[in-house]
Amino acid sequence: MGDTDDGKKKISEAAIRRLPRYYRFLTELQGRNIERISSKELSRGMEITASQVRQDLNHFGGFGQQGYGYNVDYLQNEIGKILGLNQTYTMIIIGAGNLGRAICNHQNFNRRGFHIAALFDINREMTGKQINATPVYSMDYLEEYLQENRADIAALCIPSAHAQEVAVRLCACKIKGLWNFSSVELDVPKTVQVENVRLTESLMTLSFAIKEAGGDLDER
Amino acid sequence: MGDTDDGKKKISEAAIRRLPRYYRFLTELQGRNIERISSKELSRGMEITASQVRQDLNHFGGFGQQGYGYNVDYLQNEIGKILGLNQTYTMIIIGAGNLGRAICNHQNFNRRGFHIAALFDINREMTGKQINATPVYSMDYLEEYLQENRADIAALCIPSAHAQEVAVRLCACKIKGLWNFSSVELDVPKTVQVENVRLTESLMTLSFAIKEAGGDLDER
Repeated sequence: MGDTDDGKKKISEAAIRRLPRYYRFLTELQGRNIERISSKELSRGMEITASQVRQDLNHFGGFGQQGYGYNVDYLQNEIGKILGLNQTYTMIIIGAGNLGRAICNHQNFNRRGFHIAALFDINREMTGKQINATPVYSMDYLEEYLQENRADIAALCIPSAHAQEVAVRLCACKIKGLWNFSSVELDVPKTVQVENVRLTESLMTLSFAIKEAGGDLDER
Repeated sequence: MGDTDDGKKKISEAAIRRLPRYYRFLTELQGRNIERISSKELSRGMEITASQVRQDLNHFGGFGQQGYGYNVDYLQNEIGKILGLNQTYTMIIIGAGNLGRAICNHQNFNRRGFHIAALFDINREMTGKQINATPVYSMDYLEEYLQENRADIAALCIPSAHAQEVAVRLCACKIKGLWNFSSVELDVPKTVQVENVRLTESLMTLSFAIKEAGGDLDER
């Protein structure tokens, strides 16, 4: 965890990964009208050590006060700002199959400032339809659409075989982020941010936990 | 990273999280007929330091040889065994909406030994149907089904409001693992393993990356 040139503490990827979890936990506390929380309680709720909590939050300017703990509203809001949640993002979804439709119907995204503007699909039977009041367009129309409409993020809900080729098209249209549900490691310019959702890896992590817990299973 | 009572090195959660990535990367190398790989190349492909690679793989008995590197087949197979992928798992899916159907149609899971046996839904219009040759049953039938059929893992593809209640029913039926797509923190016995897929958190991580990269967006 070194310092960057401008003196700001460099944040480890593990700490960044924990920020959305802090945000979710704090939002849950708000919902229960809890106004402040100690690093000990925060650590219990987050299932990490209290010293880790203090270290994490210190990176972001140390929001805690000795003997008082953290103000939940303030901390939630500050972490939200760090995560960029005080901004709005326009998202398009590539692929209007089951996964694309599930993403489109998800309740939480809009609430967090992610507005889904359109879906795209190669299947001509899908184009012209609407999903959750969001239009489905033909993939042929992608470039023209992106010239005329803003889109910050594209969710790739398409088969792995097509993911790279579509990513290249999206990068050419100056997309800022790709939310990649395919199993492919995308090769894109450094200026484009990629977040992978690896479902198979997640399932493997679960199978590891079951195996470690001594669940008795069939050999194959 | 301490030692456990039986002298085996305790593996950090971060190292465990990396195992499925190693597995995926090594499987990709196999597909390209690559027989061996140095920790340096492995580190480049995995985007982690070479010393981290050596440290990770040392936990699992050190599969590398000085000056030779790692045998890809052997390493892939050993990591597969650690992950429990030499066993088969039977999975049921709770919720036959878009997400449940997307999981059911996913190509990779069966190949990795995760067999999807059934879906369950409260919607009576869905029950009796088949998705990808997998039957959809009524939620009323869940307990009876689990008395008569094996299921190791249940994927929770249902609204967050119902996730805890369904998790309790599944735990009572001796499920071994829950693959939780809801945003709820499930409260289950320690003997049941939970793997959460946090889509909103993943999207927040992407928005953080875009913000850090200086993507210029609207304040809200």
